[in-house]
Amino acid sequence: MPRYALKIEYNGAPFSGWQRQKEHPSVQQAIETAISRLQQQQVTIAAAGRTDAGVHALAQVAHVDMARAWDPFRLSEALNYHLKPSPVAILAAAPVSGDWHARFSAHERRYLFRLLPRRAPAALLAGKVWQVAHPLRIAPMQEAARYLLGRHDFTTFRATECQADSPVRTLDQLDIEWVETPLGPEIHFYVRARSFLHNQVRSFVGTLERVGAGAWTPEDVRRALQAKDRAACGPVCPPHGLYLSGVGYVDNPFDRPSEP
Amino acid sequence: MPRYALKIEYNGAPFSGWQRQKEHPSVQQAIETAISRLQQQQVTIAAAGRTDAGVHALAQVAHVDMARAWDPFRLSEALNYHLKPSPVAILAAAPVSGDWHARFSAHERRYLFRLLPRRAPAALLAGKVWQVAHPLRIAPMQEAARYLLGRHDFTTFRATECQADSPVRTLDQLDIEWVETPLGPEIHFYVRARSFLHNQVRSFVGTLERVGAGAWTPEDVRRALQAKDRAACGPVCPPHGLYLSGVGYVDNPFDRPSEP
Repeated sequence: MPRYALKIEYNGAPFSGWQRQKEHPSVQQAIETAISRLQQQQVTIAAAGRTDAGVHALAQVAHVDMARAWDPFRLSEALNYHLKPSPVAILAAAPVSGDWHARFSAHERRYLFRLLPRRAPAALLAGKVWQVAHPLRIAPMQEAARYLLGRHDFTTFRATECQADSPVRTLDQLDIEWVETPLGPEIHFYVRARSFLHNQVRSFVGTLERVGAGAWTPEDVRRALQAKDRAACGPVCPPHGLYLSGVGYVDNPFDRPSEP
Repeated sequence: MPRYALKIEYNGAPFSGWQRQKEHPSVQQAIETAISRLQQQQVTIAAAGRTDAGVHALAQVAHVDMARAWDPFRLSEALNYHLKPSPVAILAAAPVSGDWHARFSAHERRYLFRLLPRRAPAALLAGKVWQVAHPLRIAPMQEAARYLLGRHDFTTFRATECQADSPVRTLDQLDIEWVETPLGPEIHFYVRARSFLHNQVRSFVGTLERVGAGAWTPEDVRRALQAKDRAACGPVCPPHGLYLSGVGYVDNPFDRPSEP
């Protein structure tokens, strides 16, 4: 059966997360239902990152085995047609070999977290950012973030229900930037690693926000990491500022020139 | 009665526009209703630009005469409390003199138009951008825009129902830029003038899009302007990519240092 990689954008707000659940709408279910409109055969799709309820994606990657071969552009067009009106869009489709796996072939996940630092309610960005009404200082957050870079036991920054075998991960990037957007200033967190523990990014951002607010020192973050104790973590921030922004593959199927 | 200027952000989607109407929700009505929760006296507020249905604002400016004096910060906080859950936010309030008028004291209006140039549906930016699925070239649009700069009779780019006395306006800026945002590439139009005719910005953008698509030449835009004929205009583009992004005043009430 021909396998295709799908690059997917979605608004996480109406979904209980990526993963299919019996009682609640999921992104996986929305896409699998769209696929079932194209062929009789039921399929199960696998994604690079199983995002939580309310988390968005700019470029989630999944793969699907189709009953027949498709022109990649026509496949994405047909899926987008059947996905309406769900806020899920197939940005691209690409043929991959039968041993290529959206999750297991990925060597990197990238996340963007958008924080809106202001007092007045967010009329235009509601549900798309985490709004923080009190003043935040960037420099101490950046200083604290440096303690988190590299290979560590991240037990402190891992949900108690996390099912990963090991709490050890290597954090390759945690940049914090003040960004002037056409809609006003935001604070962006750019986070990158081979893989993440459950709630790791939201545990980082929630803890670093405490540093920006002056309630924690950067040194407190270092101590929290060293404690290897979930109770030492700061508050986990809300999901709706979080975006899965990219997935890295050694041979990225979406970077290949399309066939003539 | 003490007069206050209000700087206002709103999502235009649920509203029939700025201006109060009998049968439909308006931004003006939402704010006037919030004010009526603060005092017995009914008020009518005046805005710098009466935006159409579906048009957003990053920094609309209005003024209101209150029954008593307010601390500006407390006034904006109280209004934001009573505006919930409408997607309208008071970004700032500032005391102004009794002869200051949000509309008549303004010497400049600025608009941002966001165009999303891509094929796949906009899962995250639905209702916030005008999506165009076919390829667009920026350079010819920029060339055409130069013909529109300066003082002209803009009859071609003016809604037939426009109530302005004269079709002559001076266009000070019409910049078109390819912008890389964290959510992907957009084409932004930055438009600035002392004042605008009804539907002028949307008539510009809709016509310039035809140039970007290759259906019109830049010279066609020059001829359309010279025709001084509404029938010579390109299609008027949809409202939901348009943002009133700023209003200019000689003595901007929001730039003054607040009193001790």
